[in-house]
Amino acid sequence: MKGNLYLIPTTLGEQQPADVIPAKVLGIAAQLRHFVVENTRTARRFLRAVDPEFPIDDSDFVELNEHTDLSTIGQYLDACERGEHVGLMSEAGVPAVADPGNAVVAMAHSKGIRVVPLSGPSSIILSMMASGLNGQNFAFNGYLPVKPAERAKAIRNYEKRSLTEGQTQLFIEAPYRNNALFDDLMHNLRHETRLCIAADITLETEFILTLTVGEWLKRKPELHKRPAIFAILA
Amino acid sequence: MKGNLYLIPTTLGEQQPADVIPAKVLGIAAQLRHFVVENTRTARRFLRAVDPEFPIDDSDFVELNEHTDLSTIGQYLDACERGEHVGLMSEAGVPAVADPGNAVVAMAHSKGIRVVPLSGPSSIILSMMASGLNGQNFAFNGYLPVKPAERAKAIRNYEKRSLTEGQTQLFIEAPYRNNALFDDLMHNLRHETRLCIAADITLETEFILTLTVGEWLKRKPELHKRPAIFAILA
Repeated sequence: MKGNLYLIPTTLGEQQPADVIPAKVLGIAAQLRHFVVENTRTARRFLRAVDPEFPIDDSDFVELNEHTDLSTIGQYLDACERGEHVGLMSEAGVPAVADPGNAVVAMAHSKGIRVVPLSGPSSIILSMMASGLNGQNFAFNGYLPVKPAERAKAIRNYEKRSLTEGQTQLFIEAPYRNNALFDDLMHNLRHETRLCIAADITLETEFILTLTVGEWLKRKPELHKRPAIFAILA
Repeated sequence: MKGNLYLIPTTLGEQQPADVIPAKVLGIAAQLRHFVVENTRTARRFLRAVDPEFPIDDSDFVELNEHTDLSTIGQYLDACERGEHVGLMSEAGVPAVADPGNAVVAMAHSKGIRVVPLSGPSSIILSMMASGLNGQNFAFNGYLPVKPAERAKAIRNYEKRSLTEGQTQLFIEAPYRNNALFDDLMHNLRHETRLCIAADITLETEFILTLTVGEWLKRKPELHKRPAIFAILA
């Protein structure tokens, strides 16, 4: 019988795993010895936080991230073929959402390996919940374009779609560009559009607030280098 | 100082809360005495599962669901104004996503009440993770239309958008119509489109599989009355 591919959530920053991850999920993670991870150093640190006695040196780690050539991952689930379980972990939060981890999940389905998703913190779903915007119809669009003209166009297109379809539009930016993104949103959105900014989700410094763009114009937040999700609904 | 609005996740079916909800979150839920809930009976049962000694009779519950006249919820956060915390719970999973709970979250933002989203099982994000489809760009579209012509059109539109934008499209159906929806998907999607079906997520009977429509045609699953999420990517 083949082993499973467990999708293991990690914390969204410096915090105790038990604060945001169920006890049963931590127990499953602690039993695994084969991992596909977005970042090996972060993954090892997380496993030590889950269990200070975790046998890091008896475990194997292979990386899957934006630098990975997908033609090289063919052996990543060989342990499953031998009947052992494998864990997939992203750098923060749940894997295979907002990261390239889905490539190994797709491979599991094609090889007849059972995929088991485990509950934990997703900054996308937590910000969607906390936004107060329409949660019955929403889209996560990933990163905004970097070039100014494309970026302005993308912002206006998201606003337009939210207006015509009633669909909440979520997106992200590299944290060091968050303040610049805030300014771009102020320039390109209508004053009456609602904007939720959710930064440092689940951390001590958590900041989540939904205001109209007109209200945000009087209240600029400090978002520099803070992981954040933006959501709009016109 | 005002109390917080805590967004409390619940289980996705008959299971131990500690299996899918972090210990800290269960501790917060057990301390609350004021609740806005999608269904009072389910909420009370959940709180008793969290803590058999939970003082149900000393707690108050008001309902917010698809039958609620939103003009009547104005007092739902009065406890927060008095400095006490309030918990929002949906019938299953995380609140304010795929249910009308966002109305009270929006009210909290407008009243300057802090909204605190707590980690737990979201069938949408768990199925997105487990699908192996594009998790860097996805949309949750809620329920499909019921009328056959509109329904076929919606299915084809989702497929088209997934093709032109590379955006995974997720949707749901009332569980007693899942088998009929499966047939409609078989009739309306291209054979090469990938379809993930995720049923009974996190439960003992969990079934999650991604195949092309051509492959599903040879392998009809039994989905009657099983809570399920459907995701496609052409």
